[in-house]
Amino acid sequence: MDALSLLVSALPDGVVVTDPDAVEKYRFDWSRDLLAGHPLAVVRAEDAAQVQTTVRWAAEHRVPVVPRGAGSGLSGGSTAVDGGIVLSLERMRAIEVDVECRVAVVEPGALNAEVKAACAEHGLWYPPDPSSYEICSIGGNVATNAGGLCCVKYGVTTDYVLGLDVVLADGTLVTLGGKRIKDVAGLSLLKLFVGSEGTLGIVTRVLLRLVPAQAARSTLVASFPDVGSAAEAVVDVGRTLRPSMMELMDNASINAVEDYRSMGLDRTAGALLVAQSDAPGAARAEEMTQIAAACELAGATAVFSTDDPAEGEMFVEARRLAFPAIEARGALLLEDVGAPVPRLPDLLAAIAAIATEHEVEIPVVAHAGDGNTHPIIVFDAGDPASEKRARLAFEAVMRAAIDLGGTITGEHGVGRAKKGALPDQLGPEVMALNQRVKDALDPHGILNPGAVL
Amino acid sequence: MDALSLLVSALPDGVVVTDPDAVEKYRFDWSRDLLAGHPLAVVRAEDAAQVQTTVRWAAEHRVPVVPRGAGSGLSGGSTAVDGGIVLSLERMRAIEVDVECRVAVVEPGALNAEVKAACAEHGLWYPPDPSSYEICSIGGNVATNAGGLCCVKYGVTTDYVLGLDVVLADGTLVTLGGKRIKDVAGLSLLKLFVGSEGTLGIVTRVLLRLVPAQAARSTLVASFPDVGSAAEAVVDVGRTLRPSMMELMDNASINAVEDYRSMGLDRTAGALLVAQSDAPGAARAEEMTQIAAACELAGATAVFSTDDPAEGEMFVEARRLAFPAIEARGALLLEDVGAPVPRLPDLLAAIAAIATEHEVEIPVVAHAGDGNTHPIIVFDAGDPASEKRARLAFEAVMRAAIDLGGTITGEHGVGRAKKGALPDQLGPEVMALNQRVKDALDPHGILNPGAVL
Ligand SMILES: Cc1cc2nc3c(=O)[nH]c(=O)nc-3n(C[C@H](O)[C@H](O)[C@H](O)COP(=O)(O)OP(=O)(O)OC[C@H]3O[C@@H](n4cnc5c(N)ncnc54)[C@H](O)[C@@H]3O)c2cc1C
Ligand SMILES: Cc1cc2nc3c(=O)[nH]c(=O)nc-3n(C[C@H](O)[C@H](O)[C@H](O)COP(=O)(O)OP(=O)(O)OC[C@H]3O[C@@H](n4cnc5c(N)ncnc54)[C@H](O)[C@@H]3O)c2cc1C
Repeated sequence: MDALSLLVSALPDGVVVTDPDAVEKYRFDWSRDLLAGHPLAVVRAEDAAQVQTTVRWAAEHRVPVVPRGAGSGLSGGSTAVDGGIVLSLERMRAIEVDVECRVAVVEPGALNAEVKAACAEHGLWYPPDPSSYEICSIGGNVATNAGGLCCVKYGVTTDYVLGLDVVLADGTLVTLGGKRIKDVAGLSLLKLFVGSEGTLGIVTRVLLRLVPAQAARSTLVASFPDVGSAAEAVVDVGRTLRPSMMELMDNASINAVEDYRSMGLDRTAGALLVAQSDAPGAARAEEMTQIAAACELAGATAVFSTDDPAEGEMFVEARRLAFPAIEARGALLLEDVGAPVPRLPDLLAAIAAIATEHEVEIPVVAHAGDGNTHPIIVFDAGDPASEKRARLAFEAVMRAAIDLGGTITGEHGVGRAKKGALPDQLGPEVMALNQRVKDALDPHGILNPGAVL
Repeated sequence: MDALSLLVSALPDGVVVTDPDAVEKYRFDWSRDLLAGHPLAVVRAEDAAQVQTTVRWAAEHRVPVVPRGAGSGLSGGSTAVDGGIVLSLERMRAIEVDVECRVAVVEPGALNAEVKAACAEHGLWYPPDPSSYEICSIGGNVATNAGGLCCVKYGVTTDYVLGLDVVLADGTLVTLGGKRIKDVAGLSLLKLFVGSEGTLGIVTRVLLRLVPAQAARSTLVASFPDVGSAAEAVVDVGRTLRPSMMELMDNASINAVEDYRSMGLDRTAGALLVAQSDAPGAARAEEMTQIAAACELAGATAVFSTDDPAEGEMFVEARRLAFPAIEARGALLLEDVGAPVPRLPDLLAAIAAIATEHEVEIPVVAHAGDGNTHPIIVFDAGDPASEKRARLAFEAVMRAAIDLGGTITGEHGVGRAKKGALPDQLGPEVMALNQRVKDALDPHGILNPGAVL
């Protein structure tokens, strides 16, 4: 029997998918890497034991394993590799809410939105909210340490992970952490797995810390003549206030969204800020007034506020539409660069200069309150010169972020798309340290080879 | 030349201390482990380069290095070992506040209180507040992932660490993270070093995330007939509210504090809760009312509230005095066990039963809102039978926490005191994983040998 047949016979019927048409849609994530490999098969695991069986088999036969959640990743982290297995967690999606402990016990394939909804039924809240929350899995969120819109006040995925079950590279299942809030027994391995992009182990269960339901929110939309003044407002707000959202859209992304679906945004604005406050009681109106004042001081030409949740959500939804809207215009290279918040104006200026220099369009949206921007480099896939300019711009944007004391990725991960730039940010010693930890945990390099390192 | 002379000659005068009297006070932390070893010397490093020199020398000569902050640790993490070096960071205490970035750049020896004070000068706040904040260093806080009183709302040390400089076991200095808030470039090595208790590297610089100054606080003190009803109130409050402090003292600790220094606590109370709210504006009074109502519902016999900061601080100070006060009574074994918050009443009941069974006194204080308790086992150091009973109780308390899905240490660390119990909590696979990471980063085992693993 060949190796693959051994795997097929070790797992229940239907778990191993080899039909080329069916396999095809597991080759790419949202970054749609044209260099994606052709995997041997897709394993659609139903439980942790099947994940273990698969990984043990892969370890024995030295077959690469690419873990895959919902495939919404933007950096090629779950791009298939030649001759490997795609290990999909999409069928493992049980959600159990322990109301007493305020913990959700979640299988990795459950979508972020499904987890939020299950918690909300009990008046509890799982804060992290990537724009993709309706199409990304909790396992993917953990593996990338996903951020989102409310993270400026409420932190990112790692801040909510209390426990993980992880299948290691030799097939061992370990349980890390638990339902206790504080725990320092042993090394912080839990946190090490968060953000490891499937290179250290496969997450098969997640314990998430929940908090009481979010208080009512007010939403503010401010128009600015340019991104620089909007960024100044962000810096100013951050000095004294703690808004629960602080998002930025530039003119190009505003217009892309409006072209895609009319959302009532001001097409003439140089930039929009979409901010929210969820301060309790009367403090909310006060915080809104202070945010508005900071926007006006920084040069906002119009400030609109609403306490109506539906109206507020419409603006947030417009912000979330930016990726699909811009994607509808052509091929994209998606950035995720960050900088210290006060460097945000400089970063945005550098991006604009790079767009000019390389003659590419680079609309920008940003989780501005965290200094995390998404420049989106648009190019004409049919025109090699355009693509080449885009790729140069892609590198230049990362370089600019590094030069400003920032990062090449704030939340999407390194994956395969940004692997080349990682040494520029980390330097040789930290790269070596990464590699040492990787080698210790995955000595044969079967877990997501080619990603990150 | 012998090895030590080589070290002495490689460092400036006065950095290496070998005088036995001077060395003596670097042998113990607050756990005062009688088995503490006799080190070769103490290195009182003045900068990262001296730390590197020391570690390179230690690596070459295979000499154990015990990193040491302020020595306030409670689990023997910085207890000296025979023939080793104590590497004290106490002289490296520069603090620089980057107001724009809201980041403090701190040398490891700076005391937590010094960092807080430096930030407060700029209207900024570094939240983590161990009870020992006036006598513990930031390096120690990072190495233990220290918690504290406001952590129930604001999180623990790891949530505030944006960057670290670490000297690795071979003397290499790596810089991890930076002044950006979000960064997922590479493995989460930053978080791995937090809580590693000096076993993976020596922290020589810390970048701390700061937030705007805390809002005004109100303080509530509620008396309960017993710890069980106080614990029920804690569980109830946690369901819907986010107090910024939720501390518990039992009758024995109340009386120990009152004996030590009269603080006006109710000596007849079975337990006290000291809670604070820092909700903004009018929401604060509302939250205080709700906390009071939950206390009354759970059976509080008296509830006192104050908006006066000085009066509130007095009660918090009384809570902080519990360790020194109980210590004044005799020899102690300090616990730090935690459980899921709803199991807090069970944990406290189990502790009381253990006290009875082993005929020892076990006063308890707790960061109750996080389910993190400090049972303090008092014994008569001159009486071997008493000490033996205390040691059995110490083990039994950890066992009880594990059985309730909890942890043997919520914030103090494993150190040397709890090393024996770590496998009971983690199990063989997770222990092996800890060891694998340790071996990868410190192949010769020179960093804090005997601690944690
Ligand atoms: C429109 C749009 C908006 C987005 N907005 C945001 C945003 O605001 N914030 C943000 O952080 N991201 C955002 N993303 C990116 C993406 O949604 C996140 O990275 C998400 O966390 C990926 O989850 P996934 O389940 O789709 O993972 P995948 O794409 O399937 O995988 C992502 C990575 O995680 C690994 N992985 C997945 N599951 C597991 C597992 N169980 N165990 C181990 N490794 C695993 C994969 O190997 C891969 O490296 C957005 C994406 C889109 C398309
Ligand atoms: C009265 C009292 C109350 C306390 N209350 C709390 C509390 O509320 N919450 C809490 O979390 N703790 C509390 N503690 C425990 C203690 O203060 C903390 O563990 C603190 O973080 C230790 O800091 P330190 O500088 O004294 O470290 P030390 O005791 O010197 O060392 C602690 C550990 O950190 C390592 N270490 C120290 N510095 C470095 C460095 N630069 N690099 C690498 N490793 C290093 C040491 O090797 C050791 O393993 C309390 C202690 C006392 C005495």
